[in-house]
Amino acid sequence: MSDVLPVSMPAVPECDRARASFFGRVSARGGWVHGVLACLLMACAMSVPTQAADPAGNGPLRGSGDLGIAVERAKGSLQWLDTSKLSSLGRIEGLGDLSHASAVFSRDARYAYVFGRDGGLTKVDMLTGQVVKRIIQSGNSIGGAISQDGRWIAAANYTPGGVKIFDAETLALVADIPTGTKVVGLEDVPGNRFVFSLWDKGETWIADLSEDPGNPKITRLTGTGTQPYDALISPDGRWYVAGLYGENGIAVLDMWNPEQGMRRVLPDYGRGEEKLPVYKMPHLDSWAMVGNLAFIPGVGRHEVVIVDVGTWRQVGVIPVAGQPVFVMAQPDGRRLWVNFAFPHYDTVQIIDVPSQKIVHEMKPGKAVLHMEFTPRGEQVWLSVRDANRLEVYDTHTFRKLAELPADAPSGIFFTSRAHRIGL
Amino acid sequence: MSDVLPVSMPAVPECDRARASFFGRVSARGGWVHGVLACLLMACAMSVPTQAADPAGNGPLRGSGDLGIAVERAKGSLQWLDTSKLSSLGRIEGLGDLSHASAVFSRDARYAYVFGRDGGLTKVDMLTGQVVKRIIQSGNSIGGAISQDGRWIAAANYTPGGVKIFDAETLALVADIPTGTKVVGLEDVPGNRFVFSLWDKGETWIADLSEDPGNPKITRLTGTGTQPYDALISPDGRWYVAGLYGENGIAVLDMWNPEQGMRRVLPDYGRGEEKLPVYKMPHLDSWAMVGNLAFIPGVGRHEVVIVDVGTWRQVGVIPVAGQPVFVMAQPDGRRLWVNFAFPHYDTVQIIDVPSQKIVHEMKPGKAVLHMEFTPRGEQVWLSVRDANRLEVYDTHTFRKLAELPADAPSGIFFTSRAHRIGL
Repeated sequence: MSDVLPVSMPAVPECDRARASFFGRVSARGGWVHGVLACLLMACAMSVPTQAADPAGNGPLRGSGDLGIAVERAKGSLQWLDTSKLSSLGRIEGLGDLSHASAVFSRDARYAYVFGRDGGLTKVDMLTGQVVKRIIQSGNSIGGAISQDGRWIAAANYTPGGVKIFDAETLALVADIPTGTKVVGLEDVPGNRFVFSLWDKGETWIADLSEDPGNPKITRLTGTGTQPYDALISPDGRWYVAGLYGENGIAVLDMWNPEQGMRRVLPDYGRGEEKLPVYKMPHLDSWAMVGNLAFIPGVGRHEVVIVDVGTWRQVGVIPVAGQPVFVMAQPDGRRLWVNFAFPHYDTVQIIDVPSQKIVHEMKPGKAVLHMEFTPRGEQVWLSVRDANRLEVYDTHTFRKLAELPADAPSGIFFTSRAHRIGL
Repeated sequence: MSDVLPVSMPAVPECDRARASFFGRVSARGGWVHGVLACLLMACAMSVPTQAADPAGNGPLRGSGDLGIAVERAKGSLQWLDTSKLSSLGRIEGLGDLSHASAVFSRDARYAYVFGRDGGLTKVDMLTGQVVKRIIQSGNSIGGAISQDGRWIAAANYTPGGVKIFDAETLALVADIPTGTKVVGLEDVPGNRFVFSLWDKGETWIADLSEDPGNPKITRLTGTGTQPYDALISPDGRWYVAGLYGENGIAVLDMWNPEQGMRRVLPDYGRGEEKLPVYKMPHLDSWAMVGNLAFIPGVGRHEVVIVDVGTWRQVGVIPVAGQPVFVMAQPDGRRLWVNFAFPHYDTVQIIDVPSQKIVHEMKPGKAVLHMEFTPRGEQVWLSVRDANRLEVYDTHTFRKLAELPADAPSGIFFTSRAHRIGL
């Protein structure tokens, strides 16, 4: 296949973790054990039954800080993961359409809230591997967030367009914020606020739940730009950054000074005047921020762009193997891990931050869709969709530590996200 | 009492969280419920029995991400805390001498490892509130750390001087690193390494457990300076910073480039030529780092010192109410919370980072010894030693959310530390 095959983009580009690339289809070809001699640990998923609590809520005690899930999109299921044992605890089923699925976690790190493409919101008990509750909260959803205090779940919806707020305990509807258009880039920020952007209107709204969660105070900001398609919040909760599909540049909002409104920066960032072919719009929710620098995927370009967050100006580029999808910093900020769109989606490159050089390259297999670090950064977990497996690597030595079977895995989410702003 | 009463410092200044100030004694005067009208939630500690697991390890399931402990030094016990319910789950007893106690947590956030002054190392189950195992690992200990992968516990000892490494699962001794002198400032850094300094020798050692934990590879660095008394590691694990008791200045080690050795910076930082009276040497383990700035307690001065971490030069000072002990940044980096040595130990001041102005002051009571933020920063918990209580505040509104009785509480530690480098 050609390296420059142009892509027909969907009406709203789906910057999703869970979605297969535009080209690939879920493939069951190939067993999961082949050529895995380097692997130190081998675990057999689906062999361990889920552990239910008894009617009194008693069950096998375990900490919830080292658990996670990997989305199996085609099956509508999750692999239930243990990062201490490098193993799967089983499969959790019955979550509906998990295209574009993402997850957030309760403040006690016990429950996952999984947002599905079909508007489903599913509460999963990470200690028992069971679905606690599932509601269909809209016709079509693009993700969600959890409030700083852990009490409120917000879902961003396309159909009907708007944001719904749910009680994290019961999933009861608490507030409905209709927008009349598709909502993208929903993020939590300190002060029990949520921020999100409107695809058709080029606006960014702040919903403040701190006073009256049932009647959020809304602040509407205009001037976001044409067709915001995704957003991120910086790890400190200060910078809300919206990517634009309809024009070049990005929109930035300083949550410490929201009265200053949306600011347009990086005017040359984007597909360019000649509309470069873009195989997959890069994800914004995992831009790497190290000190005062952000490392962001070049759109349609084989490069990582370096931006000074103090000035929001481009200060450099790092050439890479393909069009980056995720540029993720290790928790220690020392290295960046980059995956790519088709046709380089079998490759991961690792960049040393101080020297800005590529120090390692690996080819785990076709369609590396997502990467998740353990919270202190000693491991990274990869989804290798077409190989139907997860792979775990030592971030220091790049040694493969484990492979686990998984059905066309996409997004990976660890419970330690419970303790991070914007995750 | 005089504001300038000079203090006789101990032979090794004990930069401890748990220790009472040099002046105060544990006081039981005053009930714990007085004038608490503003308090939204009131919880009665010690009323709930601890929940044990049955012999098969089954018990009441709960997430472990929202738990914590507060040290009750005089009783050798812990208050067992729930930050979701703003309550105490009970008292955990039998931990020996908890002067100078500190704690780290297992990677699944289930177990606390408490380091006591008496050389005790106690493993506590945060799900059952029970002591799982307790060993006396030395005659006199100053704290410890847990390795990046969560498998190894390191204890820093005075008597005999050195570091011991234990298996986190069993507390079996794995390695012994004698130093011939008191060890201070033990910190974990990425790559399963520990860094620590030697009080009498002015050296800093790196113990690398990544290859053979039973036989750590030791790197000795000289030139740390006279009498290092404590240290910190920056939240990204890059900067190891040792405070000096015997001279002015601090020592910095770049863990990304340890071959560059110890670097002496901030030559005017310290007690000065005239040896200012110092009521309590400030803690280093909680210097606030926000972006490229560090906010550090002035030694013997009523000021917070601002340091540019890019150059390690002082770039400003913020006048405050007394001699700062802890200068702690909220998880969002927006505000600093500062407590003080005698005689201003009843006061907490809050500094807005962008403007560097004091935006709030509170007087919770005598001897505010420690402050701990919930991981996303919506709450801060304070130990008010002489009032025998913990207080919980909303970090946005400064409203008091709860008071909980505790016997002369000192250090507070939440399980979310499991997921942070250097905590």
